Amino acid sequence: MPELRKDPILGRWVIIATERAKRPDQFSGSSQQDYAEKPCPFCEGKEPSTPPEIYSSRPRHTMPNGPGWELRVVPSIAPFLRIEGEIDRRGKGLYDLMNGIGAHEIIIETNEHISNMADLSEGQIAKVITCYIDRINDLEKDQRFKYVLVFKNHGWIAGGGRVKHSRSQLIATPVNPKRVKEELAGTRHYYEYHERCVFCDMIRQELESKDRLILDIDGFIAIAPFASRFPFEVWILPKKHSCDFTHMEMSHRVDLGRIIKQVLQKLKKGLNDPPYNYILHTAPFRRQKMGYWKSIEHDYHWHIEIMPRLTRVAGFEWATGFYICPLPPENAAKFLREVQL
Amino acid sequence: MPELRKDPILGRWVIIATERAKRPDQFSGSSQQDYAEKPCPFCEGKEPSTPPEIYSSRPRHTMPNGPGWELRVVPSIAPFLRIEGEIDRRGKGLYDLMNGIGAHEIIIETNEHISNMADLSEGQIAKVITCYIDRINDLEKDQRFKYVLVFKNHGWIAGGGRVKHSRSQLIATPVNPKRVKEELAGTRHYYEYHERCVFCDMIRQELESKDRLILDIDGFIAIAPFASRFPFEVWILPKKHSCDFTHMEMSHRVDLGRIIKQVLQKLKKGLNDPPYNYILHTAPFRRQKMGYWKSIEHDYHWHIEIMPRLTRVAGFEWATGFYICPLPPENAAKFLREVQL
Repeated sequence: MPELRKDPILGRWVIIATERAKRPDQFSGSSQQDYAEKPCPFCEGKEPSTPPEIYSSRPRHTMPNGPGWELRVVPSIAPFLRIEGEIDRRGKGLYDLMNGIGAHEIIIETNEHISNMADLSEGQIAKVITCYIDRINDLEKDQRFKYVLVFKNHGWIAGGGRVKHSRSQLIATPVNPKRVKEELAGTRHYYEYHERCVFCDMIRQELESKDRLILDIDGFIAIAPFASRFPFEVWILPKKHSCDFTHMEMSHRVDLGRIIKQVLQKLKKGLNDPPYNYILHTAPFRRQKMGYWKSIEHDYHWHIEIMPRLTRVAGFEWATGFYICPLPPENAAKFLREVQL
Repeated sequence: MPELRKDPILGRWVIIATERAKRPDQFSGSSQQDYAEKPCPFCEGKEPSTPPEIYSSRPRHTMPNGPGWELRVVPSIAPFLRIEGEIDRRGKGLYDLMNGIGAHEIIIETNEHISNMADLSEGQIAKVITCYIDRINDLEKDQRFKYVLVFKNHGWIAGGGRVKHSRSQLIATPVNPKRVKEELAGTRHYYEYHERCVFCDMIRQELESKDRLILDIDGFIAIAPFASRFPFEVWILPKKHSCDFTHMEMSHRVDLGRIIKQVLQKLKKGLNDPPYNYILHTAPFRRQKMGYWKSIEHDYHWHIEIMPRLTRVAGFEWATGFYICPLPPENAAKFLREVQL
C-alpha cells in the first residue's frame, strides 16, 4: 500500500509509491537515458495487455475489452495510489501520514498508434473531454475523494513513459492538493477585494492588449500567461465564467477540442514536437462543505495549463519557488500566433 | 533589464530573464541534448575570462584577478538579476511587476578542474562555507535585498552548465521567496502550538528512531526526510538550534565541511555520480521589521537540502504540488549508511 506523508514544515504531501518502488541500487546517474520505445499495450487488438476497462467509447455491437473502440479508460498497472481500502490518517511522532488511497486511471485517447494529442481530430479530442467529465463525475460519488487531477505527460523529459501512444491520466486524491488550495485562496482573496473573478479580469485585459494572446476562437482563449514559468507556457480558458469543468455543455466540448488541437499543433510545428505537460485545474468536489471556500462558484475559473519542457528546473527554483523564464511571454505569443497550421 | 513579474493568482514571482533571452526559434524539442563540455573559464590561469573578482581566498603576495588563489567569487556573466538600479514596483492593469534588481554571483570553489564538490577536501569545503557567510553578510548591507539564496546545480539534468568546474551560486532577491515564506509560516505555526522548533523536534525524533538517519557527526546530522520528494533526498541540519547560517562559529564550519563531504561522497560512490541540486535555507534579512515574523529566532532552523535528480517531475507534480517518491526514505537512508567511503 502506498503511503501519503505530510511534510511537517510545509504541509506538502508526498506519495511514497511503494507499488512502483525500485531497489536503491536500481537508481544511478545514467538511468535517465534508458528510454528506448517499448511495445505498445494500448493499440486496438492489444486489449488483453491492459487491466479490464472502466469506461469506453465504442459502438453497441462491440464487446468490452475487445476491439472496435474509439477510446478506453483502464486502471494504471503501476498505480501511485490504490483504490481499495479505508483512509487511515495517523501520526508517527511529529509526522502525519495516511494510506495511499486514490484512483489512478489511464485514458487511452485513440485506438491508433498516434503519439501526440495534436494529431487527433477535433472530434476525437472532444470525446476525450467528455470522457474526463464522465470519469470526474463518477469518481465524485466516492466520498473518500476530494479532487481529481487530469494530466498528460508527453515526451520523456516531461515524464512520459517508454510507450508512445497518446493518453491522459487522472489521479483522484483523498486530500485537496496544495497547488489547488493556493489557487482557491488566491482567487478568493482577489474576489473579496474586487468582487470580480481574477481569471475573468485577466481574460478581459488579455483580449484588450493582445500582447500575450495566441488564439481567440469559439468562446475560448489561449494566452501566454503574464508570469510564465516556462518558455511557451500556454493557458486555455473559457471566456464564460465557470468554476467547474464538468458543467461544460456538449457544444462547447467540440469548441474546446478545436482550440486544444490548434495550440498543440502550433507547439508541435513551431518547436519540433517538444515534450510537454498538460494539466486541468477545476474546482474541487464537495465545495459546499468547505467553509470559507463557499464562494468558489464565483471566485474560481477552470483552465488548462500546457507547459513545454524546454528548460531545466534547477536549485534556485526548487529552493525559492521563483521561476526563471528565458523568453518573455509576449515573444512566445507572437511566435505561436505566427505558426501557420 | 530583467523583469520580476508576479502571478496574480498564486503570488508566485517569475524572473523574465531578458539578459539570457533566446530568440523563440532557438528553442526546440531536441535542444536539451546539446550539452557537450565547454572549455573551462574557471581554472587557475583563466582569470581574464571571468568578470573581476568580488571576493577571493588567496595568499597576501598574490594579486586580485591573477593566479595563486584558492577560491574566487565573480559576478555571473549572464545574471538572472541586475545589481544596478532602483527597485521600481508598478502595476500593469491587474498585473504587478518590478525591475529585476538583485545580485547573481558564482563561487568558484577550487582553482583545480574538479567537477564535484564531493572531491574537495573538508578544509576546502569549510572555506566555501566561510565564503558563503562573508558574501551573505556583505549583501545584507544592501538595503534593496531581502534574501540571499545559495545553491548548486551539479550535472546537466540538475541545471548545471556545460562547464564542469565545481562552483556554487548565490542570488540576492528584492523580495522574500515564496518557499522561504512558507517555511517561516510553517515553523511559526508549529512553534505557536508547541513552543518548540519543529526542526529541533525532528532532529530528536530522527536520532531516536534512526530509521532515516544517514550520518550523525560533530554536531550535525544528515537524514533522509520523512516526506522526501526525491529518492535519496538528504537534509543536513545543525543539532544546536540556530536560525541563521551566518552565525556559525569557525570550528563548526570545518565540521559542516566534513559532513557535506561525506554525504556527497556517499551519493557519488553509491549512485554513480548523480546530478543533484543543493540549497541552503537560512533566515531572511531584516527580520526585526517583519511583523509577525518576530519569532523567527526561535521558530526557524537553517538547513541544507540535497536533491539528487534521478526521477522526472511530471504533470501531476506541477499541477498539485504533491510529489511522488518511488523509494521510501528509510530504504534510501539504509543504502547510504552502508556506502563505504
